[in-house]
Amino acid sequence: MMSYDASELDPLLKKTKAASRSYAILTSGKKNEALEKIARQLDMARPEILKANRQDYEEALSRGLSPAMCDRLLLTESRFSGMVSGVREVAALPDPVGTAVSRWENQDGLVIEKVRVPIGLVGMVYESRPNVTVEVASLCLKSGNGVVLKGGSEAVRSNTILSQTIWEGLAEANVNPDGMAFLPWTDRKVVQDLVSNTTLDVVIPRGGASLMETVVSHARVPVLRHDQGICHVFISASAPFTMARDIAINAKVNRPSTCNAMETLLVHEQLSESFVHPLLNILKEKEVTVFGCPRTRHLDPTIAPATPESYATEFLALSMNLRIVSNLDEALDHIAQYGSGHTESIVTSDVFEADRFLREVDASCVMVNASTRLHDGAVFGLGAEVGISTTRIHARGTMGLPDLTTTKYLVHGHGHLRGS
Amino acid sequence: MMSYDASELDPLLKKTKAASRSYAILTSGKKNEALEKIARQLDMARPEILKANRQDYEEALSRGLSPAMCDRLLLTESRFSGMVSGVREVAALPDPVGTAVSRWENQDGLVIEKVRVPIGLVGMVYESRPNVTVEVASLCLKSGNGVVLKGGSEAVRSNTILSQTIWEGLAEANVNPDGMAFLPWTDRKVVQDLVSNTTLDVVIPRGGASLMETVVSHARVPVLRHDQGICHVFISASAPFTMARDIAINAKVNRPSTCNAMETLLVHEQLSESFVHPLLNILKEKEVTVFGCPRTRHLDPTIAPATPESYATEFLALSMNLRIVSNLDEALDHIAQYGSGHTESIVTSDVFEADRFLREVDASCVMVNASTRLHDGAVFGLGAEVGISTTRIHARGTMGLPDLTTTKYLVHGHGHLRGS
Repeated sequence: MMSYDASELDPLLKKTKAASRSYAILTSGKKNEALEKIARQLDMARPEILKANRQDYEEALSRGLSPAMCDRLLLTESRFSGMVSGVREVAALPDPVGTAVSRWENQDGLVIEKVRVPIGLVGMVYESRPNVTVEVASLCLKSGNGVVLKGGSEAVRSNTILSQTIWEGLAEANVNPDGMAFLPWTDRKVVQDLVSNTTLDVVIPRGGASLMETVVSHARVPVLRHDQGICHVFISASAPFTMARDIAINAKVNRPSTCNAMETLLVHEQLSESFVHPLLNILKEKEVTVFGCPRTRHLDPTIAPATPESYATEFLALSMNLRIVSNLDEALDHIAQYGSGHTESIVTSDVFEADRFLREVDASCVMVNASTRLHDGAVFGLGAEVGISTTRIHARGTMGLPDLTTTKYLVHGHGHLRGS
Repeated sequence: MMSYDASELDPLLKKTKAASRSYAILTSGKKNEALEKIARQLDMARPEILKANRQDYEEALSRGLSPAMCDRLLLTESRFSGMVSGVREVAALPDPVGTAVSRWENQDGLVIEKVRVPIGLVGMVYESRPNVTVEVASLCLKSGNGVVLKGGSEAVRSNTILSQTIWEGLAEANVNPDGMAFLPWTDRKVVQDLVSNTTLDVVIPRGGASLMETVVSHARVPVLRHDQGICHVFISASAPFTMARDIAINAKVNRPSTCNAMETLLVHEQLSESFVHPLLNILKEKEVTVFGCPRTRHLDPTIAPATPESYATEFLALSMNLRIVSNLDEALDHIAQYGSGHTESIVTSDVFEADRFLREVDASCVMVNASTRLHDGAVFGLGAEVGISTTRIHARGTMGLPDLTTTKYLVHGHGHLRGS
């Protein structure tokens, strides 16, 4: 662990920014070549990377970090393979840089083009998951951005070796490695200094409440938050039984440590007996801890009570709330009060209910008859994602390659003047 | 002038946010009806509004505010008419809310729509120009957003009567006036408290360096800056004489108090005699004060010297820098060093130079053979603009109605699960 010397940060950011300018004008061919070299270097360094990651993981376990955090930290063999193929998938994605968003002529024949250009220098602040290092480096390179990566202290061994491997791939392709900086310091003061340095053009934080608070309080550059997901599934009275059961279970247990996992299930009161009873048995089998509303606890008094605090909790684990509601309005009110604006789903066969839910729920993704776990760039067919943005501007919901660009107007005149 | 009681702000914002939810679901017809009522109320209140504005203007003159600020403050008869017709133009614009950005199916038949929805509650912090009050209120209403307007203390009489008039129009159309708040307090502490209140979804500051610093230092919500324009025109050796002269003059004198006016003219050295000499005479006639580089002062020693400070100044007045450069590279370097990323133009007949300029200049709008003054939503044919954004994310350059929306994914499944 390197000790942090604040005077080193600004020069490093300036050097990274300067090098990032050369990324903005790389051809797609060159960027794809560099990504392929990075993928190969990762494959070659696989044993050393997994070894370093295992050390991080074991230390995290021994330090008593939450099971969700430890799970996200771990690079299994299959996650490693997924990480490497992710780099090749980014290479296969269309390059957004230089594509036209629109082109038109005004009434005086002035030709106006709005084209995609890189944002510039992206700051990424994240916790735990070391594969984010590779994902974000790949996406930033492909979109022509420089990037400054600040991972969590718990993943510092993994991130150090991953960054060295990425640099080797870049150098092999004759791309300046200086456009990608990895901050090795584990001091949280680094985050404060980073997000208040206006050499960055944007900062993207992914992590828990404490990290978000640090970033939002100190940021002097635009922030695209990738915040917690307190996601709900509402089972309407008209929901088909099997579909409702499968979606509720999938949304909770498929991968509970992710932000798009369900935290609270809302069930219409008509289904108290027919649906909730059998569901509670399945949840017990799956070792899910349930916090129940009074009506749920009336069905099974062994269940712990749900509270305003548990409704506002992102468990990131095999725990959930279950609340029986009187109608759709009560479900909508609950979501408006406790939802984090991430992903919300209704299971229903009633088209009017579906329409109301889609229109009235204010979230980055609103679903009908689908598991919240499906809110994902790859599942949507958009390719690798930077994360799921809970910011209302620039990019909302799953954020992919084009969302790492901004636009520039190109205007072609032949002597056009104003007001004449 | 009302004295500011900080405890009143948060309840006001919460009330505005609550009312803004009803704006999100207004039909286009209802929003257009309200805009028409506002336009009529403004027409009826014209004499009182112009009288209040005249008081603001005279006080500003007597307080010795800058001529640029006084100019922007003044509602002339023609500016007033433009302001009212602007409201009707917003009514005529297509409603972005509910329009699809894209729609597709993933490989499993999940239907994904990305549709435009209002951002929510917009905070607008601005100086001087009272017509911004009406423009922004109209644009926010049409895009389904609530808005909190904080104008400058110098325009408080104008803004107070304008806001009352807008409320009357809203009430007449049975639209809840509470979704539009106008902060009457002139204390700068109000700006700090406003931008740090997360009831706002976004804040848009338009104004000078001091206002920007206050907003950026205190903001806890996303900021879309509408910052200063230090815009350049570069006259290449190949530029047609008349076109170059007309664009240089138009960019400076058409309306010098605006952000898209030219502050510095860069001229290729081959044109020192043939172009700069006659241009200096015209600039003298137009009463433009020129700060010149050493080579310019060699042509006319009566000219004051340009300095790093003058190159970094947004004059907003009939003043400008003139620098003779050796080649395109020197012009590009000057723009990279001093430009504010707003609007940059080249006058040239050489296609290779034009292409390099368009590609290499990093600004929200890059032009060939056109006056920088043309970077404007109305000129572009986009309708009324919120302003010209110098932020690199969400909206860059002229920012119109669709830029006041965000998106939401609507996902339609029929029992879709993850990983099965």
